[in-house]
Amino acid sequence: MKNLVGACMFGQSGGPTSVINSSAAGVFIEALNQKNITAVYGAAHGIQGILNEDFYDIGKEDVKELELLKNTPSSALGSVRYKLKDADVDDTDYKRILEVFKKYNIRYFFYNGGNDSMDTCNKVSKYLLKSGYECNIIGVPKTIDNDLYGTDHCPGYGSAAKYVATTMMELFLDATVYDKGQVTIVEIMGRNAGWLTAAASLASYKGYGPDLIYLPEQVFDVDKFLKQVADVVAKNNGKCIVALSEGIKTAEGLYVAEAIAAGNSAKDSFGHAQLGGVAATLANLVKEKIGGKVRAVEFSLMQRCGAHLASKNDVEEAFNAGKYAVKYACEGNTDKMVVFKRAEGKEYKINYELMDISLAANTEKKIPAEWILPDNKGLSQAYIDYALPLIQGDSKAPLEDGLPRFAKLKKVRV
Amino acid sequence: MKNLVGACMFGQSGGPTSVINSSAAGVFIEALNQKNITAVYGAAHGIQGILNEDFYDIGKEDVKELELLKNTPSSALGSVRYKLKDADVDDTDYKRILEVFKKYNIRYFFYNGGNDSMDTCNKVSKYLLKSGYECNIIGVPKTIDNDLYGTDHCPGYGSAAKYVATTMMELFLDATVYDKGQVTIVEIMGRNAGWLTAAASLASYKGYGPDLIYLPEQVFDVDKFLKQVADVVAKNNGKCIVALSEGIKTAEGLYVAEAIAAGNSAKDSFGHAQLGGVAATLANLVKEKIGGKVRAVEFSLMQRCGAHLASKNDVEEAFNAGKYAVKYACEGNTDKMVVFKRAEGKEYKINYELMDISLAANTEKKIPAEWILPDNKGLSQAYIDYALPLIQGDSKAPLEDGLPRFAKLKKVRV
Repeated sequence: MKNLVGACMFGQSGGPTSVINSSAAGVFIEALNQKNITAVYGAAHGIQGILNEDFYDIGKEDVKELELLKNTPSSALGSVRYKLKDADVDDTDYKRILEVFKKYNIRYFFYNGGNDSMDTCNKVSKYLLKSGYECNIIGVPKTIDNDLYGTDHCPGYGSAAKYVATTMMELFLDATVYDKGQVTIVEIMGRNAGWLTAAASLASYKGYGPDLIYLPEQVFDVDKFLKQVADVVAKNNGKCIVALSEGIKTAEGLYVAEAIAAGNSAKDSFGHAQLGGVAATLANLVKEKIGGKVRAVEFSLMQRCGAHLASKNDVEEAFNAGKYAVKYACEGNTDKMVVFKRAEGKEYKINYELMDISLAANTEKKIPAEWILPDNKGLSQAYIDYALPLIQGDSKAPLEDGLPRFAKLKKVRV
Repeated sequence: MKNLVGACMFGQSGGPTSVINSSAAGVFIEALNQKNITAVYGAAHGIQGILNEDFYDIGKEDVKELELLKNTPSSALGSVRYKLKDADVDDTDYKRILEVFKKYNIRYFFYNGGNDSMDTCNKVSKYLLKSGYECNIIGVPKTIDNDLYGTDHCPGYGSAAKYVATTMMELFLDATVYDKGQVTIVEIMGRNAGWLTAAASLASYKGYGPDLIYLPEQVFDVDKFLKQVADVVAKNNGKCIVALSEGIKTAEGLYVAEAIAAGNSAKDSFGHAQLGGVAATLANLVKEKIGGKVRAVEFSLMQRCGAHLASKNDVEEAFNAGKYAVKYACEGNTDKMVVFKRAEGKEYKINYELMDISLAANTEKKIPAEWILPDNKGLSQAYIDYALPLIQGDSKAPLEDGLPRFAKLKKVRV
């Protein structure tokens, strides 16, 4: 545990969320107040900005604009998807990072992202430890997928879940408005874990939810799906709402859209396999096999950048994740990730703790099997109790001309 | 001009909006206060509910729930798409309507919808006038398409425009987050008029808008489109955001997705012409002809039911449209539609006036050509000045469990 004196570097990585910039605000505002931190830098496009020696001097920004980051979606510094090789195989990137860190006397490094980003953060941390260069490194979790191990939940999930639940409620009212029914198939993000799709069950909890929910935690069977939809259609005057994850897979481990396209040798006009999402693919199938009006809806990028619908708890927790990362690093901690621990008791309260970052780097947290109701009926009350606190409260950018006033950073290059 | 004494019937028709129920609230609350109105009925699924003698007694509802209608999206009474035949050709439906109106002594009829619904309202009005049955009939405008003639704008447009502008701003931040660019093609509703797609230019006005906008008011040329996208891609490190209307058509008058599918004889795996929206179709084309990462996004149903993002001005104006319809009918007016007139002067103010309903029934209002910038660069300042007041203020349902508390009607059948 070393109290180092030097500059701090912060980077954002992976897919954007509504609140990743709130964590940035937490890191920046706290770091600017720490006397041991001599300069605060933000890497342009994550690790790539460090490799390219391309970063911004956050000390030159107005604090008011840094505060506005709390409600500005996406990654203000730019993001990246760049996988570091294992240092044992090829240490070129690591040498370069060490060189840059030495040149700017970077003694604090904070990296904000999901599984892959924590893998990057872990690798850099291990390399620097081995090299003997003193630098306190803390990962700041982020992902709408909510699949990071060791934390009660991930910053970004609550707001995306609130988007999914609210929008599903609105969609329910829209999709059932005509006397003659319609099958509506809604595709929600989440390649390997169904947390975000599960949030559709919050709409059911309020009485405006999907009839059927399909998660990547379960094997997807097309025939069973068609039967389940047909049953709802028959019972419910043609009306059926389905929520499904983009990541649902067949027993053979194929993504459903791939599997159907392969089975039908569907090619588009250019000879490629059809791109279309799984909702569109299954909508075509329902139209063919069951008939009637069918509509596919994708929440697409909106579910991860819909900051106008962010949860106040999520915005504040994301900010605190960044703030505590800096605090803990300044107290001498390194090689860790900030995790959320839910306090015991009736009142919802989060404590900010640390976990070895190697644990976060290589594990994926899925929905507990016992929370998933049989026959694709949705999630149990245990999930509802878990998720409801995460979507509480509103927090959004101030309005200017009736539209959000997002942070405008000067981005002064170092 | 007759001050009639009797019951009032209200119906909702056509595609849902975020604020159509606010007009319902305006009609109901005002009608319940009018002493000449002896009962207030809401037709289940519009004109179909009248034909089927299927309607609700609104007098049995809690006023608190009627107030909540202001922020409840979609059509609380159910909607319908049913085109009345010309009475000269087949007057069966009209005779039935007259029979039902006589049976329940309905002397006030309010119908809420867009062009087609105003056509229905107009036909019923003309038939009852001719038949000598006294009934004051007023149309209440509604459509996210904003294409009704004779009114400054339509209730529903402001909220949908606010959804489009806000979401486009968020999407801009998301879609430009990586160093390596991506072409993002966003499909927005509007079959014949581009008003809603035009709202994407409000995001540009704030600095977060699309590079290119394609409206149904302009002929769509695929080659010109590809060249324009390629130019932006070349200039802007691969990043290009396109907003386009679902209704864009080729010089031959074909919808673009149809035209491309026909040209390529694209068939899906079941032998049907490919369904896919125009954004998905053009995304495939851009991928093929220009390359790089391309993403199609559809605002889909969310843009018309996103009541959590409703404009306060829109919610209030929709309410007033309903309220004034009842007031004016009770003063003896009939065969009219409520229209919005924007007052002269700097301050934004709407006056509620009446227009012959036949004028609304058969005319479509498009975007003035002089408001459309050349080379698909978006809309002029005249449009911005027109549209900005319509998206001002926030108005949404109270939260319960962090999610909207929508109106719950008892729907007591008459």
